[in-house]
Amino acid sequence: MKFCSECGNTVVHRIPEGDNLPRFICEHCDIIHYQNPKLIVGCLPVWNEQVLLCKRAIEPSYGLWTLPAGFMENQESLEEAALRESREEANANLDIQNIYSVISLPHINQIYVLYRAKLLDLDFYAGSESLDVQLFNEADIPWEQLAFKTIERTLKQYFEDRTQNTFPTHTSVISRRNRLGEKKDIIR
Amino acid sequence: MKFCSECGNTVVHRIPEGDNLPRFICEHCDIIHYQNPKLIVGCLPVWNEQVLLCKRAIEPSYGLWTLPAGFMENQESLEEAALRESREEANANLDIQNIYSVISLPHINQIYVLYRAKLLDLDFYAGSESLDVQLFNEADIPWEQLAFKTIERTLKQYFEDRTQNTFPTHTSVISRRNRLGEKKDIIR
Repeated sequence: MKFCSECGNTVVHRIPEGDNLPRFICEHCDIIHYQNPKLIVGCLPVWNEQVLLCKRAIEPSYGLWTLPAGFMENQESLEEAALRESREEANANLDIQNIYSVISLPHINQIYVLYRAKLLDLDFYAGSESLDVQLFNEADIPWEQLAFKTIERTLKQYFEDRTQNTFPTHTSVISRRNRLGEKKDIIR
Repeated sequence: MKFCSECGNTVVHRIPEGDNLPRFICEHCDIIHYQNPKLIVGCLPVWNEQVLLCKRAIEPSYGLWTLPAGFMENQESLEEAALRESREEANANLDIQNIYSVISLPHINQIYVLYRAKLLDLDFYAGSESLDVQLFNEADIPWEQLAFKTIERTLKQYFEDRTQNTFPTHTSVISRRNRLGEKKDIIR
């Protein structure tokens, strides 16, 4: 950030009084421009023994497989965001079952929130951001061609939970360190 | 938003190609300035039968009681944010137990994420954003002096869950309509 989005004057980057982190401040408007993490919200759609994955038609990870998910918009709830993204990317008709996987990625200021959802029919098809949409059995998941570590972790957790038929909400962290291969455990 | 935060030129507000919502766009930088909901993250600190509340020293809801929570920062995980806010507002030493209450407030573009947490000692005291910090038994909760509906809902849910000694993650929505008294049910 270089300029104030309200007045167009140059911003400064310093710690405001009573704060402990540097912020972008417009001394003309006397506004602090906070910057906060973004939510990526989606679904893990399930049809009997199968899960639905989308092949990405956009970067990053063009051509790799993912769960339908995307940036949450203003003016919507988490559940609305999860269903909207599933419609946009896979034209999937879903019933949300529960909030399932919550993963913080502090190095890129993102939080993933994925809902377990029941696919209501087989009328899905690729939206404009997908090259393909398919159902996969566990044995056929393209583990080496998944778009994001969040998706891999959520799918592994799901198949593990399915052996117990219990699907509690899992929260975990994927840090930069993990991208170099050191994997943090799921913490709860 | 009136000006591009990267170049200081005036932005336009229109639907970008391939999108379906109007965005603030800088036609000089060719940047779309997305605006997204913010996360408010905190804890429900528990000591035996009691829960810890903070009396707010800042607006909004100055003088009313709340759980320690605040805007999530970049570069931190949800759990780190929850613990940081609890330290800042109540100097509370906590162990996080589980993600407990997730509430969307679409009319103000906020998502609350509150963790159930175990208070480790009684060395808590008011931080600069609190007038007071106290432990409350269920019978003594100041229901009429709670700062936010999210806090009321979370506390009610907690005392209800405690009768079963089971604390699953609850997600729900508080919409503008609810502020007029019409209350949506907790949806899962």
